[in-house]
Amino acid sequence: MPNKSNRVFKIDKLPAVKRLPAYLHLLRELSRRGEEFVSSSYFSEKMQIQPILVRKDLELTRVNGAPRKGYEVIELIKGIENFLGWNKSIDAFLIGVGQLGSSILGNQHLMNVGLKVVAAFDKDPAKIGRPIEGVSVFELGRLPELAKRIHVRIAILCVPPEEAQKATDLLVAAGIKGIWNFTHVTLVTPEDVVTQKEDLASGLAVMSAALTQSIQHKNN
Amino acid sequence: MPNKSNRVFKIDKLPAVKRLPAYLHLLRELSRRGEEFVSSSYFSEKMQIQPILVRKDLELTRVNGAPRKGYEVIELIKGIENFLGWNKSIDAFLIGVGQLGSSILGNQHLMNVGLKVVAAFDKDPAKIGRPIEGVSVFELGRLPELAKRIHVRIAILCVPPEEAQKATDLLVAAGIKGIWNFTHVTLVTPEDVVTQKEDLASGLAVMSAALTQSIQHKNN
Repeated sequence: MPNKSNRVFKIDKLPAVKRLPAYLHLLRELSRRGEEFVSSSYFSEKMQIQPILVRKDLELTRVNGAPRKGYEVIELIKGIENFLGWNKSIDAFLIGVGQLGSSILGNQHLMNVGLKVVAAFDKDPAKIGRPIEGVSVFELGRLPELAKRIHVRIAILCVPPEEAQKATDLLVAAGIKGIWNFTHVTLVTPEDVVTQKEDLASGLAVMSAALTQSIQHKNN
Repeated sequence: MPNKSNRVFKIDKLPAVKRLPAYLHLLRELSRRGEEFVSSSYFSEKMQIQPILVRKDLELTRVNGAPRKGYEVIELIKGIENFLGWNKSIDAFLIGVGQLGSSILGNQHLMNVGLKVVAAFDKDPAKIGRPIEGVSVFELGRLPELAKRIHVRIAILCVPPEEAQKATDLLVAAGIKGIWNFTHVTLVTPEDVVTQKEDLASGLAVMSAALTQSIQHKNN
Protein backbone atom coordinates (compact mmCIF):
# COMPACT_ATOMS: atom_id res chain seq x y z
CA MET A 1 0.00 0.00 0.00
CA PRO A 2 1.37 3.44 -0.85
CA ASN A 3 1.86 5.25 2.42
CA LYS A 4 1.86 9.01 2.20
CA SER A 5 2.69 9.43 5.88
CA ASN A 6 6.19 8.06 5.18
CA ARG A 7 6.90 10.69 2.57
CA VAL A 8 9.90 12.86 3.20
CA PHE A 9 8.07 16.09 2.42
CA LYS A 10 5.17 15.70 4.80
CA ILE A 11 4.14 19.13 6.03
CA ASP A 12 4.15 19.67 9.78
CA LYS A 13 1.91 22.28 11.36
CA LEU A 14 -0.62 22.02 8.56
CA PRO A 15 -3.26 24.33 10.09
CA ALA A 16 -0.60 27.03 10.59
CA VAL A 17 0.63 26.71 6.99
CA LYS A 18 -2.98 26.99 5.79
CA ARG A 19 -3.36 30.26 7.66
CA LEU A 20 -0.21 31.84 6.20
CA PRO A 21 -1.99 33.27 3.10
CA ALA A 22 -4.45 35.05 5.41
CA TYR A 23 -1.56 36.63 7.33
CA LEU A 24 0.09 37.59 4.06
CA HIS A 25 -3.10 39.21 2.82
CA LEU A 26 -3.43 41.34 5.97
CA LEU A 27 0.29 42.21 5.97
CA ARG A 28 0.20 43.42 2.37
CA GLU A 29 -2.78 45.63 3.21
CA LEU A 30 -0.84 47.09 6.16
CA SER A 31 2.19 47.62 3.96
CA ARG A 32 0.10 49.48 1.36
CA ARG A 33 -1.17 51.75 4.15
CA GLY A 34 2.43 52.46 5.17
CA GLU A 35 2.27 50.63 8.53
CA GLU A 36 5.68 49.50 9.79
CA PHE A 37 4.74 47.31 12.75
CA VAL A 38 1.90 44.95 13.59
CA SER A 39 0.92 43.23 16.84
CA SER A 40 -0.22 39.63 17.25
CA SER A 41 -3.50 40.96 18.68
CA TYR A 42 -4.22 42.66 15.33
CA PHE A 43 -4.12 39.29 13.54
CA SER A 44 -5.99 37.70 16.42
CA GLU A 45 -8.90 40.09 16.00
CA LYS A 46 -9.00 40.06 12.19
CA MET A 47 -8.71 36.29 11.90
CA GLN A 48 -10.78 35.43 15.00
CA ILE A 49 -8.12 33.18 16.51
CA GLN A 50 -6.30 33.30 19.87
CA PRO A 51 -3.19 35.58 20.17
CA ILE A 52 -1.13 32.61 21.41
CA LEU A 53 -2.01 30.77 18.19
CA VAL A 54 -0.90 33.77 16.12
CA ARG A 55 2.51 33.75 17.83
CA LYS A 56 2.81 29.98 17.34
CA ASP A 57 1.84 30.26 13.64
CA LEU A 58 4.35 32.99 12.96
CA GLU A 59 7.19 30.97 14.51
CA LEU A 60 7.18 29.13 11.16
CA THR A 61 8.68 32.24 9.56
CA ARG A 62 11.51 32.50 12.15
CA VAL A 63 10.72 36.22 12.37
CA ASN A 64 10.59 37.46 15.96
CA GLY A 65 8.36 40.25 17.20
CA ALA A 66 9.89 42.98 19.38
CA PRO A 67 8.30 43.58 22.80
CA ARG A 68 5.67 46.34 22.61
CA LYS A 69 6.46 47.15 18.95
CA GLY A 70 5.32 43.84 17.51
CA TYR A 71 6.44 42.38 14.19
CA GLU A 72 8.03 44.39 11.43
CA VAL A 73 5.55 44.24 8.52
CA ILE A 74 8.07 44.01 5.68
CA GLU A 75 10.19 41.45 7.52
CA LEU A 76 7.16 39.28 8.24
CA ILE A 77 5.99 39.43 4.61
CA LYS A 78 9.44 38.25 3.52
CA GLY A 79 9.47 35.56 6.19
CA ILE A 80 6.18 34.08 4.99
CA GLU A 81 7.15 34.39 1.31
CA ASN A 82 10.44 32.61 1.95
CA PHE A 83 8.81 29.84 3.93
CA LEU A 84 6.29 29.18 1.14
CA GLY A 85 8.66 29.85 -1.74
CA TRP A 86 6.35 32.70 -2.76
CA ASN A 87 9.13 35.30 -3.05
CA LYS A 88 8.74 35.12 -6.80
CA SER A 89 5.63 34.48 -8.90
CA ILE A 90 4.24 30.96 -8.55
CA ASP A 91 4.28 29.76 -12.17
CA ALA A 92 1.85 26.96 -12.92
CA PHE A 93 0.13 25.09 -15.74
CA LEU A 94 -3.62 24.64 -15.67
CA ILE A 95 -4.87 21.28 -16.94
CA GLY A 96 -8.54 21.30 -17.94
CA VAL A 97 -10.27 24.57 -18.80
CA GLY A 98 -13.83 23.75 -17.77
CA GLN A 99 -15.87 25.87 -15.38
CA LEU A 100 -13.70 25.15 -12.36
CA GLY A 101 -10.46 25.66 -14.29
CA SER A 102 -11.72 28.96 -15.71
CA SER A 103 -12.77 30.14 -12.25
CA ILE A 104 -9.20 29.54 -11.04
CA LEU A 105 -7.84 31.58 -13.97
CA GLY A 106 -10.11 34.44 -12.97
CA ASN A 107 -9.53 34.18 -9.21
CA GLN A 108 -8.23 37.54 -8.00
CA HIS A 109 -7.28 36.22 -4.55
CA LEU A 110 -4.99 33.57 -6.05
CA MET A 111 -3.40 36.17 -8.33
CA ASN A 112 -2.86 38.43 -5.33
CA VAL A 113 -0.88 35.75 -3.48
CA GLY A 114 1.29 35.39 -6.60
CA LEU A 115 -0.15 32.52 -8.63
CA LYS A 116 0.57 32.95 -12.32
CA VAL A 117 -0.90 30.47 -14.77
CA VAL A 118 1.57 30.61 -17.65
CA ALA A 119 -0.33 28.22 -19.94
CA ALA A 120 -3.52 26.18 -19.91
CA PHE A 121 -4.19 22.80 -21.55
CA ASP A 122 -7.31 21.01 -22.67
CA LYS A 123 -8.20 18.14 -24.95
CA ASP A 124 -11.27 19.84 -26.40
CA PRO A 125 -10.23 21.19 -29.86
CA ALA A 126 -12.87 23.94 -29.56
CA LYS A 127 -11.02 25.45 -26.61
CA ILE A 128 -7.52 25.32 -28.05
CA GLY A 129 -5.99 28.52 -29.40
CA ARG A 130 -8.47 30.81 -27.69
CA PRO A 131 -7.00 32.61 -24.67
CA ILE A 132 -9.11 32.50 -21.49
CA GLU A 133 -8.55 35.34 -19.03
CA GLY A 134 -5.49 36.22 -21.10
CA VAL A 135 -3.97 32.73 -20.81
CA SER A 136 -3.24 30.68 -23.95
CA VAL A 137 -4.89 27.26 -24.19
CA PHE A 138 -2.85 24.43 -25.77
CA GLU A 139 -3.54 20.84 -26.69
CA LEU A 140 -2.64 18.55 -23.78
CA GLY A 141 -0.09 16.70 -25.93
CA ARG A 142 2.08 19.81 -26.10
CA LEU A 143 2.61 19.88 -22.34
CA PRO A 144 5.93 17.94 -22.16
CA GLU A 145 7.58 20.27 -24.67
CA LEU A 146 6.30 23.44 -22.96
CA ALA A 147 7.14 22.16 -19.45
CA LYS A 148 10.76 21.74 -20.52
CA ARG A 149 10.94 25.04 -22.35
CA ILE A 150 9.33 27.24 -19.66
CA HIS A 151 10.59 25.14 -16.72
CA VAL A 152 7.28 25.00 -14.86
CA ARG A 153 7.09 22.71 -11.81
CA ILE A 154 3.47 23.14 -10.67
CA ALA A 155 0.26 21.97 -12.34
CA ILE A 156 -3.34 22.64 -11.35
CA LEU A 157 -5.43 19.61 -12.23
CA CYS A 158 -9.06 20.40 -13.16
CA VAL A 159 -9.91 17.53 -15.54
CA PRO A 160 -12.92 15.20 -15.14
CA PRO A 161 -12.22 12.50 -12.49
CA GLU A 162 -11.94 9.68 -15.04
CA GLU A 163 -9.06 11.48 -16.78
CA ALA A 164 -7.21 12.46 -13.59
CA GLN A 165 -4.68 9.61 -13.32
CA LYS A 166 -3.83 9.62 -17.03
CA ALA A 167 -3.20 13.38 -16.96
CA THR A 168 -1.13 12.92 -13.79
CA ASP A 169 1.09 10.34 -15.46
CA LEU A 170 1.70 12.80 -18.31
CA LEU A 171 2.53 15.59 -15.83
CA VAL A 172 4.93 13.42 -13.86
CA ALA A 173 6.68 12.28 -17.05
CA ALA A 174 7.03 15.95 -18.05
CA GLY A 175 8.88 16.72 -14.81
CA ILE A 176 6.06 18.43 -12.88
CA LYS A 177 6.84 18.22 -9.13
CA GLY A 178 3.70 19.68 -7.57
CA ILE A 179 0.12 18.75 -8.51
CA TRP A 180 -2.71 20.81 -7.06
CA ASN A 181 -5.53 18.34 -7.49
CA PHE A 182 -9.13 19.56 -7.83
CA THR A 183 -10.50 16.23 -9.10
CA HIS A 184 -11.34 14.48 -5.77
CA VAL A 185 -9.50 11.42 -7.14
CA THR A 186 -6.64 10.03 -5.02
CA LEU A 187 -3.68 10.21 -7.42
CA VAL A 188 -0.84 7.71 -7.62
CA THR A 189 2.48 9.56 -7.96
CA PRO A 190 6.20 8.91 -7.33
CA GLU A 191 7.61 9.85 -3.91
CA ASP A 192 9.22 13.05 -5.14
CA VAL A 193 6.00 14.55 -6.47
CA VAL A 194 3.94 16.60 -4.04
CA THR A 195 0.15 16.41 -4.42
CA GLN A 196 -2.41 18.59 -2.69
CA LYS A 197 -6.01 17.48 -3.04
CA GLU A 198 -8.88 19.94 -2.81
CA ASP A 199 -12.09 18.07 -2.20
CA LEU A 200 -14.85 20.67 -2.15
CA ALA A 201 -17.19 18.12 -0.58
CA SER A 202 -14.90 18.07 2.51
CA GLY A 203 -15.77 21.64 3.39
CA LEU A 204 -19.46 20.94 2.87
CA ALA A 205 -19.12 17.89 5.14
CA VAL A 206 -17.55 19.94 7.93
CA MET A 207 -20.31 22.54 7.74
CA SER A 208 -23.05 19.91 7.53
CA ALA A 209 -21.66 18.04 10.56
CA ALA A 210 -21.54 21.27 12.56
CA LEU A 211 -25.12 22.13 11.56
CA THR A 212 -26.38 18.64 12.38
CA GLN A 213 -24.69 18.75 15.78
CA SER A 214 -26.14 22.17 16.47
CA ILE A 215 -29.66 20.90 15.78
CA GLN A 216 -29.14 17.86 18.03
CA HIS A 217 -27.77 20.17 20.71
CA LYS A 218 -30.91 22.32 20.57
CA ASN A 219 -33.27 19.36 20.67
CA ASN A 220 -31.60 17.84 23.73
CA MET B 1 -12.33 39.40 20.62
CA PRO B 2 -14.76 36.92 19.08
CA ASN B 3 -13.51 33.49 19.99
CA LYS B 4 -14.62 30.74 17.67
CA SER B 5 -12.98 28.05 19.80
CA ASN B 6 -15.64 28.65 22.47
CA ARG B 7 -18.48 27.94 20.08
CA VAL B 8 -20.76 25.11 21.05
CA PHE B 9 -20.69 23.53 17.61
CA LYS B 10 -16.96 23.17 17.19
CA ILE B 11 -16.26 20.08 15.15
CA ASP B 12 -14.01 17.47 16.73
CA LYS B 13 -12.01 15.10 14.57
CA LEU B 14 -11.93 17.56 11.69
CA PRO B 15 -9.61 15.54 9.40
CA ALA B 16 -11.87 12.50 9.81
CA VAL B 17 -14.99 14.52 8.97
CA LYS B 18 -13.24 15.89 5.89
CA ARG B 19 -12.57 12.36 4.68
CA LEU B 20 -16.20 11.20 5.04
CA PRO B 21 -17.24 12.34 1.53
CA ALA B 22 -14.42 10.23 0.07
CA TYR B 23 -15.68 7.16 1.97
CA LEU B 24 -19.22 7.91 0.84
CA HIS B 25 -18.10 8.18 -2.77
CA LEU B 26 -16.36 4.78 -2.65
CA LEU B 27 -19.27 3.19 -0.77
CA ARG B 28 -21.82 4.36 -3.33
CA GLU B 29 -19.67 2.91 -6.11
CA LEU B 30 -19.56 -0.43 -4.24
CA SER B 31 -23.31 -0.30 -3.70
CA ARG B 32 -23.92 0.29 -7.42
CA ARG B 33 -21.78 -2.77 -8.16
CA GLY B 34 -23.91 -4.82 -5.76
CA GLU B 35 -21.19 -5.33 -3.13
CA GLU B 36 -22.55 -6.04 0.35
CA PHE B 37 -19.43 -5.81 2.49
CA VAL B 38 -16.24 -3.77 2.48
CA SER B 39 -13.01 -4.08 4.48
CA SER B 40 -11.03 -1.25 6.03
CA SER B 41 -8.07 -2.28 3.87
CA TYR B 42 -10.12 -1.49 0.74
CA PHE B 43 -10.50 2.14 1.86
CA SER B 44 -6.90 2.17 3.03
CA GLU B 45 -5.66 1.29 -0.44
CA LYS B 46 -8.04 3.53 -2.39
CA MET B 47 -7.47 6.57 -0.16
CA GLN B 48 -3.78 5.96 0.57
CA ILE B 49 -4.17 6.15 4.34
CA GLN B 50 -3.37 3.64 7.11
CA PRO B 51 -5.99 0.94 7.93
CA ILE B 52 -5.94 1.99 11.60
CA LEU B 53 -6.91 5.51 10.51
CA VAL B 54 -9.79 4.11 8.43
CA ARG B 55 -11.16 2.29 11.48
CA LYS B 56 -10.76 5.42 13.63
CA ASP B 57 -12.50 7.61 11.00
CA LEU B 58 -15.44 5.25 10.68
CA GLU B 59 -16.00 5.20 14.46
CA LEU B 60 -17.68 8.57 13.87
CA THR B 61 -20.56 6.73 12.21
CA ARG B 62 -21.01 4.31 15.18
CA VAL B 63 -21.23 1.49 12.61
CA ASN B 64 -19.14 -1.53 13.59
CA GLY B 65 -17.41 -3.83 11.15
CA ALA B 66 -17.82 -7.59 11.62
CA PRO B 67 -14.62 -9.65 11.96
CA ARG B 68 -13.52 -11.01 8.56
CA LYS B 69 -16.65 -9.72 6.77
CA GLY B 70 -15.93 -6.03 7.25
CA TYR B 71 -18.51 -3.25 7.18
CA GLU B 72 -21.93 -3.61 5.64
CA VAL B 73 -21.97 -1.19 2.69
CA ILE B 74 -25.57 0.02 3.02
CA GLU B 75 -25.27 0.40 6.79
CA LEU B 76 -22.07 2.42 6.47
CA ILE B 77 -23.60 4.71 3.82
CA LYS B 78 -26.51 5.39 6.17
CA GLY B 79 -24.14 5.92 9.10
CA ILE B 80 -22.16 8.58 7.24
CA GLU B 81 -25.30 10.24 5.84
CA ASN B 82 -26.83 10.44 9.31
CA PHE B 83 -23.68 11.84 10.87
CA LEU B 84 -23.49 14.59 8.23
CA GLY B 85 -27.22 15.15 7.92
CA TRP B 86 -26.93 14.10 4.27
CA ASN B 87 -29.77 11.56 4.43
CA LYS B 88 -31.86 13.96 2.40
CA SER B 89 -30.79 16.44 -0.29
CA ILE B 90 -28.67 19.32 1.02
CA ASP B 91 -30.74 22.33 -0.06
CA ALA B 92 -28.76 25.54 -0.38
CA PHE B 93 -28.87 29.05 -1.80
CA LEU B 94 -26.00 30.31 -3.91
CA ILE B 95 -25.07 33.96 -3.40
CA GLY B 96 -23.05 35.42 -6.26
CA VAL B 97 -23.17 33.83 -9.70
CA GLY B 98 -19.73 34.76 -11.00
CA GLN B 99 -17.24 32.23 -12.35
CA LEU B 100 -16.68 30.51 -9.02
CA GLY B 101 -20.40 30.42 -8.21
CA SER B 102 -21.22 29.00 -11.64
CA SER B 103 -18.53 26.34 -11.26
CA ILE B 104 -20.18 25.22 -8.02
CA LEU B 105 -23.55 24.99 -9.79
CA GLY B 106 -21.96 22.76 -12.41
CA ASN B 107 -19.91 20.62 -10.00
CA GLN B 108 -20.91 17.00 -10.52
CA HIS B 109 -19.06 15.80 -7.42
CA LEU B 110 -21.02 18.14 -5.16
CA MET B 111 -24.27 17.06 -6.80
CA ASN B 112 -23.29 13.43 -6.25
CA VAL B 113 -22.89 13.94 -2.51
CA GLY B 114 -26.38 15.48 -2.46
CA LEU B 115 -25.92 19.24 -2.74
CA LYS B 116 -28.94 20.86 -4.36
CA VAL B 117 -28.83 24.58 -5.10
CA VAL B 118 -32.51 25.53 -5.04
CA ALA B 119 -32.01 29.16 -6.01
CA ALA B 120 -29.18 31.54 -6.86
CA PHE B 121 -28.91 35.26 -6.15
CA ASP B 122 -26.93 38.09 -7.69
CA LYS B 123 -27.02 41.86 -7.73
CA ASP B 124 -26.18 42.14 -11.42
CA PRO B 125 -29.50 42.84 -13.25
CA ALA B 126 -28.06 41.18 -16.40
CA LYS B 127 -27.89 37.85 -14.60
CA ILE B 128 -31.31 37.91 -12.99
CA GLY B 129 -34.08 35.82 -14.53
CA ARG B 130 -31.73 33.67 -16.63
CA PRO B 131 -31.31 30.17 -15.22
CA ILE B 132 -27.70 28.93 -14.93
CA GLU B 133 -27.22 25.17 -14.98
CA GLY B 134 -30.98 24.93 -14.56
CA VAL B 135 -31.05 27.08 -11.41
CA SER B 136 -33.09 30.30 -11.32
CA VAL B 137 -31.20 33.51 -10.50
CA PHE B 138 -32.99 36.11 -8.35
CA GLU B 139 -32.21 39.60 -7.16
CA LEU B 140 -30.42 39.46 -3.80
CA GLY B 141 -33.20 41.51 -2.15
CA ARG B 142 -35.65 38.66 -2.67
CA LEU B 143 -33.64 36.30 -0.47
CA PRO B 144 -35.44 36.87 2.87
CA GLU B 145 -38.83 36.11 1.31
CA LEU B 146 -37.58 32.98 -0.49
CA ALA B 147 -35.61 31.72 2.54
CA LYS B 148 -38.81 31.77 4.59
CA ARG B 149 -40.93 30.22 1.87
CA ILE B 150 -38.58 27.37 0.91
CA HIS B 151 -37.07 26.97 4.41
CA VAL B 152 -33.44 26.82 3.29
CA ARG B 153 -30.77 26.88 6.02
CA ILE B 154 -27.53 26.80 4.01
CA ALA B 155 -26.01 29.48 1.79
CA ILE B 156 -22.92 29.28 -0.42
CA LEU B 157 -21.22 32.66 -0.44
CA CYS B 158 -19.38 33.50 -3.69
CA VAL B 159 -19.59 37.30 -3.77
CA PRO B 160 -16.56 39.65 -4.13
CA PRO B 161 -14.72 40.03 -0.78
CA GLU B 162 -15.85 43.63 -0.25
CA GLU B 163 -19.50 42.51 -0.32
CA ALA B 164 -19.04 39.46 1.89
CA GLN B 165 -20.00 40.86 5.31
CA LYS B 166 -23.01 42.80 4.00
CA ALA B 167 -24.34 39.69 2.25
CA THR B 168 -23.68 37.68 5.42
CA ASP B 169 -25.74 40.10 7.53
CA LEU B 170 -28.62 39.69 5.06
CA LEU B 171 -28.30 35.89 5.21
CA VAL B 172 -28.25 35.83 9.00
CA ALA B 173 -31.29 38.13 9.18
CA ALA B 174 -33.09 35.76 6.77
CA GLY B 175 -32.55 32.82 9.13
CA ILE B 176 -29.68 31.08 7.31
CA LYS B 177 -27.78 28.88 9.80
CA GLY B 178 -24.85 27.64 7.73
CA ILE B 179 -22.64 29.79 5.49
CA TRP B 180 -20.15 28.06 3.19
CA ASN B 181 -17.79 30.94 2.61
CA PHE B 182 -15.69 31.09 -0.57
CA THR B 183 -14.70 34.75 -0.16
CA HIS B 184 -11.51 34.38 1.98
CA VAL B 185 -12.95 37.09 4.26
CA THR B 186 -13.34 36.21 7.96
CA LEU B 187 -17.06 36.74 8.56
CA VAL B 188 -18.63 38.08 11.74
CA THR B 189 -21.72 36.01 12.62
CA PRO B 190 -23.84 35.23 15.70
CA GLU B 191 -22.90 32.18 17.77
CA ASP B 192 -25.67 30.00 16.33
CA VAL B 193 -24.54 30.41 12.72
CA VAL B 194 -21.99 27.92 11.43
CA THR B 195 -19.45 29.23 8.91
CA GLN B 196 -17.02 27.18 6.87
CA LYS B 197 -14.36 29.14 5.03
CA GLU B 198 -12.75 27.80 1.87
CA ASP B 199 -9.55 29.71 1.22
CA LEU B 200 -8.15 28.35 -2.04
CA ALA B 201 -4.82 29.99 -1.28
CA SER B 202 -4.48 27.67 1.76
CA GLY B 203 -4.16 24.60 -0.43
CA LEU B 204 -1.65 26.37 -2.64
CA ALA B 205 0.32 27.35 0.49
CA VAL B 206 0.45 23.73 1.70
CA MET B 207 1.69 22.51 -1.68
CA SER B 208 4.20 25.35 -2.02
CA ALA B 209 5.60 24.70 1.47
CA ALA B 210 5.99 21.00 0.67
CA LEU B 211 7.74 21.80 -2.63
CA THR B 212 10.04 24.35 -1.00
CA GLN B 213 10.98 21.87 1.73
CA SER B 214 11.60 19.17 -0.86
CA ILE B 215 14.03 21.46 -2.73
CA GLN B 216 15.85 22.39 0.50
CA HIS B 217 16.00 18.69 1.40
CA LYS B 218 17.67 17.87 -1.92
CA ASN B 219 20.17 20.70 -1.63
CA ASN B 220 21.27 19.68 1.88
